[in-house]
Amino acid sequence: MQPQPLESRRNARVQAFCRLRDSAGARRDAGRFVLEGLRLCADCVETGGTLSALYVTKTALDKGGARMDALLSGAKEVFLISDPVAEKLSDTVTTQGVFAEVPFPKTRPFAPAAGERYLALDAVQNPQNLGAAARTAEALGLTGILLFGGCDRFSPKALRASMGALLRLPVWEAASVSETLAAAARVLPVFAAVPDKTALPVQQADFSGGAVVVVGNEANGVRPETLECARRLTVPMAGRAESLNAAAAAAILIWEMVRA
Amino acid sequence: MQPQPLESRRNARVQAFCRLRDSAGARRDAGRFVLEGLRLCADCVETGGTLSALYVTKTALDKGGARMDALLSGAKEVFLISDPVAEKLSDTVTTQGVFAEVPFPKTRPFAPAAGERYLALDAVQNPQNLGAAARTAEALGLTGILLFGGCDRFSPKALRASMGALLRLPVWEAASVSETLAAAARVLPVFAAVPDKTALPVQQADFSGGAVVVVGNEANGVRPETLECARRLTVPMAGRAESLNAAAAAAILIWEMVRA
Repeated sequence: MQPQPLESRRNARVQAFCRLRDSAGARRDAGRFVLEGLRLCADCVETGGTLSALYVTKTALDKGGARMDALLSGAKEVFLISDPVAEKLSDTVTTQGVFAEVPFPKTRPFAPAAGERYLALDAVQNPQNLGAAARTAEALGLTGILLFGGCDRFSPKALRASMGALLRLPVWEAASVSETLAAAARVLPVFAAVPDKTALPVQQADFSGGAVVVVGNEANGVRPETLECARRLTVPMAGRAESLNAAAAAAILIWEMVRA
Repeated sequence: MQPQPLESRRNARVQAFCRLRDSAGARRDAGRFVLEGLRLCADCVETGGTLSALYVTKTALDKGGARMDALLSGAKEVFLISDPVAEKLSDTVTTQGVFAEVPFPKTRPFAPAAGERYLALDAVQNPQNLGAAARTAEALGLTGILLFGGCDRFSPKALRASMGALLRLPVWEAASVSETLAAAARVLPVFAAVPDKTALPVQQADFSGGAVVVVGNEANGVRPETLECARRLTVPMAGRAESLNAAAAAAILIWEMVRA
């Protein structure tokens, strides 16, 4: 496909891309999100995603390579962008000059089975924490991720911090915490992490038949409505009474879920 | 002490503060670093640190409180800054209007003892990772932290991500990796984390007599010179062949060091 030239930072497509990049609301309204970087875009195509539009600089196009070929043949529209447009689209310090718009993936029904292992994030606000937790979940081989309370899986920062794990891992966004955890509880034990010495120490939990483990918001922890559906679990802290960072807590909990 | 007014963003002290905030080199040259926020400044004073200068807005001063009293009585010089100066000094989106300059703490000799537990970071570049690892190390009760290869403990981002742990925990910056790890190895086992299936799985390591565990650079891992002084250890990854984020790896390793 012959790329269409796109040279003005004021072009309506450029403006629309920036809105999708910066606003979760704009993403929801459009049903699309954006990606930056050759690797994330390739991750998306390799996992069955569709690029509704691909934006590349001449430098990136000339560099080419197998990944770029896959992007070019997979994209519905391709735009050859100027360096000023690339700077405008970019969310990073030094851009590779490769961007895409991607429709939200189809949501499948959440159908957990015995033996499966899920991390659930409840109203986690910081996209870096969401991305880092997804990266750990993928590296350690969890089945998938559940998101409650508006965790933003399509935030560019979360996608980048996840190193693409948020594109590759099965992810469910659950509108109803109680229904989702009730469905899970029919086949799996459901735990929620709390900073509370009286809760079950994580190393004593039995994860041999799989589990769902919920990690909560950075400031407020797991929400009461979520706690009602779960057994309280804790990472015992021997040090000062500070809490763990959400991504660090997730790493320890995920590790315990898979630790042989 | 009567605060001195400081209203111009072009004041030489303001410029100097910003250089200390933004440049590790400027910090080294001056032997000072900077803090932002009431809590971090209070953490510093409570752990025996000295504020060579304190900068506060009228709003912050009027708000007062026990922590502010401690800062005011502990600071060698106090400046009452205008809101524009506060914005200039700030590294955050919404500033509290409280800043300090602090001399580097005195370095004590590193004298490890049997039973102690240390995390060592080898050329970790990302200040968020350094800060998050320090926060986990403190929460889980490690003895202290060793820094090799230029990890920047006085970066404002690292200090903030550590939630003050980098001020409270004993931290050593080691010029010579081999000498430091040789000293440690006389009383403690020394391990280095690698993404390598042939290395010792971390859950099989014996941490009962204490240990030093080294986590390496985000892109390149532990440096060869450091690996030479340590036994190779790994967090087994069942998932796709992606590596863990440095802070997530540190969280799992620290947890295993203290796991009862």
